Amino acid sequence: MFLSELLPVQKAGKIIKSQINSTGTEKVSLEDAHRRVLGQLVTSRLNSPPFDRSAMDGYAIKAAATFGHGEENPAVLKIVDRIGAGQMSQVVLKEGEAIQIATGAPLPSGADAVVMEEYTHGQEDVLEVETTVIPGENVSRAGEDIKVDEPVLEPGRLLNAPELSIVASAGYSEVQVYKKPSVGVIITGSELVMPRSHLEGAEVINSNHFTLKSLLESTLAVPHMTHCVDDRKLVREEFLRLLDTHDCLITTGGTAISKGDVVVDVATKLGEVLIHGVSLRPGKPFAFGLVKNKPVFMLSGYPVAAMVQYDVFVRENLLQMQGLERNLSLQTKTATRKIPSTLGRTDYIRAKIEGDNVRPLKIKGSGIIRSMVDSDCYIIMEENLEGRAEGEDCQVLPYHALQV
Amino acid sequence: MFLSELLPVQKAGKIIKSQINSTGTEKVSLEDAHRRVLGQLVTSRLNSPPFDRSAMDGYAIKAAATFGHGEENPAVLKIVDRIGAGQMSQVVLKEGEAIQIATGAPLPSGADAVVMEEYTHGQEDVLEVETTVIPGENVSRAGEDIKVDEPVLEPGRLLNAPELSIVASAGYSEVQVYKKPSVGVIITGSELVMPRSHLEGAEVINSNHFTLKSLLESTLAVPHMTHCVDDRKLVREEFLRLLDTHDCLITTGGTAISKGDVVVDVATKLGEVLIHGVSLRPGKPFAFGLVKNKPVFMLSGYPVAAMVQYDVFVRENLLQMQGLERNLSLQTKTATRKIPSTLGRTDYIRAKIEGDNVRPLKIKGSGIIRSMVDSDCYIIMEENLEGRAEGEDCQVLPYHALQV
Repeated sequence: MFLSELLPVQKAGKIIKSQINSTGTEKVSLEDAHRRVLGQLVTSRLNSPPFDRSAMDGYAIKAAATFGHGEENPAVLKIVDRIGAGQMSQVVLKEGEAIQIATGAPLPSGADAVVMEEYTHGQEDVLEVETTVIPGENVSRAGEDIKVDEPVLEPGRLLNAPELSIVASAGYSEVQVYKKPSVGVIITGSELVMPRSHLEGAEVINSNHFTLKSLLESTLAVPHMTHCVDDRKLVREEFLRLLDTHDCLITTGGTAISKGDVVVDVATKLGEVLIHGVSLRPGKPFAFGLVKNKPVFMLSGYPVAAMVQYDVFVRENLLQMQGLERNLSLQTKTATRKIPSTLGRTDYIRAKIEGDNVRPLKIKGSGIIRSMVDSDCYIIMEENLEGRAEGEDCQVLPYHALQV
Repeated sequence: MFLSELLPVQKAGKIIKSQINSTGTEKVSLEDAHRRVLGQLVTSRLNSPPFDRSAMDGYAIKAAATFGHGEENPAVLKIVDRIGAGQMSQVVLKEGEAIQIATGAPLPSGADAVVMEEYTHGQEDVLEVETTVIPGENVSRAGEDIKVDEPVLEPGRLLNAPELSIVASAGYSEVQVYKKPSVGVIITGSELVMPRSHLEGAEVINSNHFTLKSLLESTLAVPHMTHCVDDRKLVREEFLRLLDTHDCLITTGGTAISKGDVVVDVATKLGEVLIHGVSLRPGKPFAFGLVKNKPVFMLSGYPVAAMVQYDVFVRENLLQMQGLERNLSLQTKTATRKIPSTLGRTDYIRAKIEGDNVRPLKIKGSGIIRSMVDSDCYIIMEENLEGRAEGEDCQVLPYHALQV
């Protein structure tokens, strides 16, 4: 009976995406830029390589010395120096001479090519070259890789080791990055208590505190965690207090669809609720709204539902706020058993990948907690599907692919 | 000529692994346990669910009220309360009554089953149940998911959202985790300067500072970064100073094989060098040793080589120190063009995955910096392979799979 009022997942996703704004950018030291999202176009301030250098381990020579020589009649040269990467030979190479050189080292003055180690025999200071080398061979010219003013990295790139390396090499000690979204989190529920070894009555452990905090940290956001009892006045105060100082709000609990519920009621009174109830399983009681023009994601109080709702509706939007757009690519796997589903509803089924197959977990009883740590992917059953028979292909989203 | 002296990659890997010791464990608050590796067996201190609760959105009823009823002749009940997740009804259910209940809510006293919302029609306080329900249906019994004293998580698990959720639910506010490896890093090279917009002479930007720092952070280690000129006395001092207070040491530069080089010389004099030169491309000038009984990873000064050496020899060992063992699974892809390789040498070829194909990057000139940000995987050419022809299968390691 509620099903007809539930918003399809894709439509809900579009509504949310249309309300997401950029956090803007800030300048940070490159020391602090790891796992930040680049907020500017980086153009190189330098040539790379900064000088002509060897592209191979081998010997810097004058190419002409090898003309007419080969395996049968090697050119014989005298090794006059040996230089490692980052070293510069002080020797000016003369005819009949060779300088052993490591990849990356500046080409010695007088040399015009490098012969690969593999084509030589060296013994003490005598080198035999068993091939013909052409001028410029195995030499990287200054600026060959990157020239001054060339673009090296586009905005929107996540800065990990390779990206930081290229930004540093381009001559930048500071860089514009997107600000991390600052997220206020209200875990609602009068029954919730922090972890303890004994519970009274209907007390339930506030595991969502740890779930949401770590999910947000993994999304490169800065969480500010609070807990609130199911009291409209107190929840309202927390809404206003947190929205004053944060970019957006996430709540858990108080999103029931069947009746007025605390969180959605507060959001409705303070602002506008654009979504309440989605055709998603698990995760139906999801709401989204705007309060003080800031996005408010209202998740279920139920841990597994909250986690699925985060995966479906929150993560990519928080990444978009900080400039990171991703295409999560699904994998096709074969179902090891029948997977029932309902037309018109999107199912996220916890499952385990086994080679080319995917095995939906048997959720024995509630099976809630176990299933979260025992699974490594979702089988996504889109709303236009009525399930899959054993042996049929289905679309799988590995948890690993969600990782930023 | 050096090739015969180079250690095969697999042998080198085994030597290193045999020298890796655990960092030991420490107790941390669950608040600080995100992305730490669990260092104890977690057995539950609580039942989960802590009480009988509804496994579905629907209505708590006495099952007997539905016996003999169905779609044609629904049982008619009176809705006397509505409870959301985490709420507890104060009503004791009597015959002929139903209580609307959300998934996760405690089963009201007097009820013995839950009928799914989908099999009902509700209008105001009148509920029609169009199916027969058996006692216990859609009810999760206390302890059904996890019983007190049951193991819920093994040591060696990385603690992300699902794992933290289960540890919290098991009643733990603190947990034993492995200590993060503290890693001293010496970037050697007299020519190295921090990023700037203009370089003099043979100056090269110290991009390895940023590469190694971020690689170590991504490996959940704590890096302590230093820079040292190519001076044996100074490098020796740094070795001793850093090994005093850190679990292991990583250096870059000074690992040339063809001649005595600073870092390897210092390591040889202070301790024992077990590996010098591996049959790996790029990354041949790699060394590994023990100084003061602590592992010393000596990487090339050359950025791409250092990164490959880190991927091949360092990351998994630093993870093992903190209790995390992984099996990196390779993917099989079809080569879009011929990939030459040399028997006896392991190649890590930067490449790009394109569906079922993999395209090795054309490393134009040195192409060093670009290739790092343009590629998304390695093609691994094991030492027993002489390369692959176009259209042949090859083994691919996506960078994404290296992520912790």
